[in-house]
Amino acid sequence: MSVAPQILKAMENSSAIRKAFEAGIKLKKEFGNDNVYDFSLGNPDLEPPVEVKKAMQKFAASDDTGTHGYMPNPGYDFTRAAMAKKVSEEQGVSIEGKNVIMACGAAGGLNAVFKAILAPGDEIIVPSPFFAEYTHYCANHGGVLVPAMTNEDFSINIETIKKALSPKTAAVLINSPNNPTGKIYSKEDIKLLADTLTEHAKKTGRKPYIIADEPYRAIVYGNKTVAPLFPVYDASIVVSSFAKNLSLPGERIGYVAVNSACPEAELLCSAIIFATRVLGYVNAPAFFQRVISETWNAPVDFSSYLLRRNALTKILDDAGIHYAEPEGAFYLFCKVPKSKSGSTDENEFCSHLEKHHILAVPGTGFGKKEWIRLAYCVSEKTIANSAEAFKAAVKTW
Amino acid sequence: MSVAPQILKAMENSSAIRKAFEAGIKLKKEFGNDNVYDFSLGNPDLEPPVEVKKAMQKFAASDDTGTHGYMPNPGYDFTRAAMAKKVSEEQGVSIEGKNVIMACGAAGGLNAVFKAILAPGDEIIVPSPFFAEYTHYCANHGGVLVPAMTNEDFSINIETIKKALSPKTAAVLINSPNNPTGKIYSKEDIKLLADTLTEHAKKTGRKPYIIADEPYRAIVYGNKTVAPLFPVYDASIVVSSFAKNLSLPGERIGYVAVNSACPEAELLCSAIIFATRVLGYVNAPAFFQRVISETWNAPVDFSSYLLRRNALTKILDDAGIHYAEPEGAFYLFCKVPKSKSGSTDENEFCSHLEKHHILAVPGTGFGKKEWIRLAYCVSEKTIANSAEAFKAAVKTW
Repeated sequence: MSVAPQILKAMENSSAIRKAFEAGIKLKKEFGNDNVYDFSLGNPDLEPPVEVKKAMQKFAASDDTGTHGYMPNPGYDFTRAAMAKKVSEEQGVSIEGKNVIMACGAAGGLNAVFKAILAPGDEIIVPSPFFAEYTHYCANHGGVLVPAMTNEDFSINIETIKKALSPKTAAVLINSPNNPTGKIYSKEDIKLLADTLTEHAKKTGRKPYIIADEPYRAIVYGNKTVAPLFPVYDASIVVSSFAKNLSLPGERIGYVAVNSACPEAELLCSAIIFATRVLGYVNAPAFFQRVISETWNAPVDFSSYLLRRNALTKILDDAGIHYAEPEGAFYLFCKVPKSKSGSTDENEFCSHLEKHHILAVPGTGFGKKEWIRLAYCVSEKTIANSAEAFKAAVKTW
Repeated sequence: MSVAPQILKAMENSSAIRKAFEAGIKLKKEFGNDNVYDFSLGNPDLEPPVEVKKAMQKFAASDDTGTHGYMPNPGYDFTRAAMAKKVSEEQGVSIEGKNVIMACGAAGGLNAVFKAILAPGDEIIVPSPFFAEYTHYCANHGGVLVPAMTNEDFSINIETIKKALSPKTAAVLINSPNNPTGKIYSKEDIKLLADTLTEHAKKTGRKPYIIADEPYRAIVYGNKTVAPLFPVYDASIVVSSFAKNLSLPGERIGYVAVNSACPEAELLCSAIIFATRVLGYVNAPAFFQRVISETWNAPVDFSSYLLRRNALTKILDDAGIHYAEPEGAFYLFCKVPKSKSGSTDENEFCSHLEKHHILAVPGTGFGKKEWIRLAYCVSEKTIANSAEAFKAAVKTW
């Protein structure tokens, strides 16, 4: 009767994001929603589009039978076909439904992919800063996450990736628009990464996959776009979800799409389907598979995220906090200002902010000390109300 | 670019259940639904009760905001409280919502529990025959499943369990009513198991958990009941779902409940919550957490399963196939009759049945050669129509 020792250890270093989110729930109970500025979690505060709600009502009222039963593990054929259409449009190359596996969110999809490809001790390279949970997703399946520091503007640094490459490299994982930096990796950098891996494969005989985790693809600012991956690299996989663009993170609905140009596409899909089954996901939730099969391309107005970004960056400017200007997603990655005693410690600064009812996440978990992350997918009111708190926090730091 | 070698190997020995299920889909396309007798998968053909449908419609129409967002990883407080009520009623001892973790089905729950408790090389003992997927769930987290053969009537054989016990034993996993045998483990046997493990703990200093996987608890025949576990053993965990009793297997909604008498209950719950998060489940699907919070105790008439059991056992009697009389669930475990050439091979017999459009699953994966499993959660018409096919199959075997 005990908890496994390696889990105890992992729990100690566990999610600062979730800790802040749960601290926020407590603070809000004590001080009221309006007096807590919770920038901890990427929990979109936009409601799902009306099309999603209509589809929910339609399927809830349907007299069709068997709609809540098991279906084949990769999902309904009609849902997979819809996702194939989505991915084909985004990637500019055609893939079929058989190359899509429905997943319990992008997190479930990534776990299934990692389980499918990682031999014990294999490595996954990730441009750093990176989404903190990747470390766990990789370790779950006997792999090791190898961060490769990006440039100062958080663009891919191909030299650090070259240094990180080894015969153990199973994949390079990219996340663009990036959580936590908001960076979008350029078309040129994606091409350079692809060429570098092709070169590496020639030398070592092992071609790493490129896995693009892109739940934020639709949330971009100005005239930015996310470059397609499939046309430039055959051994490539896209993992995504409807958590962020359709505001459905709690429903756990996402997918994995394998490049049909990948010579091992069929075997790889079988392995991901197998992993989906044995990891106990079994299949993505049936009801939302139906809902998104008809609403995946519902138009969503993300302009409020731009307004929020601009409102929060102005507040940070006024408070004297430096940040990286996000090109997409809804996170602001901020440099910890130097305190009166000379500290730039991210954990101390987050604790200090919490005293002012501001909830932020230390950059440590994202692979970047002396930085913090603010998620601005919160109401404009919360952002506006936080201005004085930020000022006061910096003044007393 | 490749699939991990250990996954390739696992895939080779992969699920006979799913293979039969998918072979069935193909056969039905070719010969029509009425001419294929698909007993492969535990996919309940009863529709969810009307209460579930009403709740779905209510929540789909609701104007509440934020209902599809993230919530704390273990689930909504109101859903956890409802599950605590359910488990308290079933177990006859009181547990609170904080001892419940909502899961993506029982399969997701078991994976989260195994991840939380298994140190590398730890063992989980299971009375055999057992649900075939347990082997994978255990291996996913570095554990080894150790089958302990039951008695001839499939009741627990305490001697085989005693022999299987070692300092590496992290838990004993019981599944009652059992898949594939339909056996319900008696109150006396549960007590004997508890006492045996308490004795083992005194000797070795390590007390194994008892984990009860009981999605079939509600589906019992005659005056049978499933004995509670919590009152007789403190280090105990119940894992369940609404897949079978409310016919919602595709929606992936289940839970884990930890005995509040367990001295490490709080730490264990934290570890299971952590595992739920990092395995990428993140949380059980939000919509069905709401639905089952109000419908978990909807009355369901399982008498049709009894009718089906009786109809199918009569057909097997007539065809001369021996089986174990199920006390619960909806599976018939049948002995392979001896063929004219003297074969009792379960794989050969399943292939032979498939020629007669009968889909069954070989017992191999369940730990029992020379037996096959039939899932009779199918229409009465399918069962009635299969009579001639069974007779013909046995005659030509």
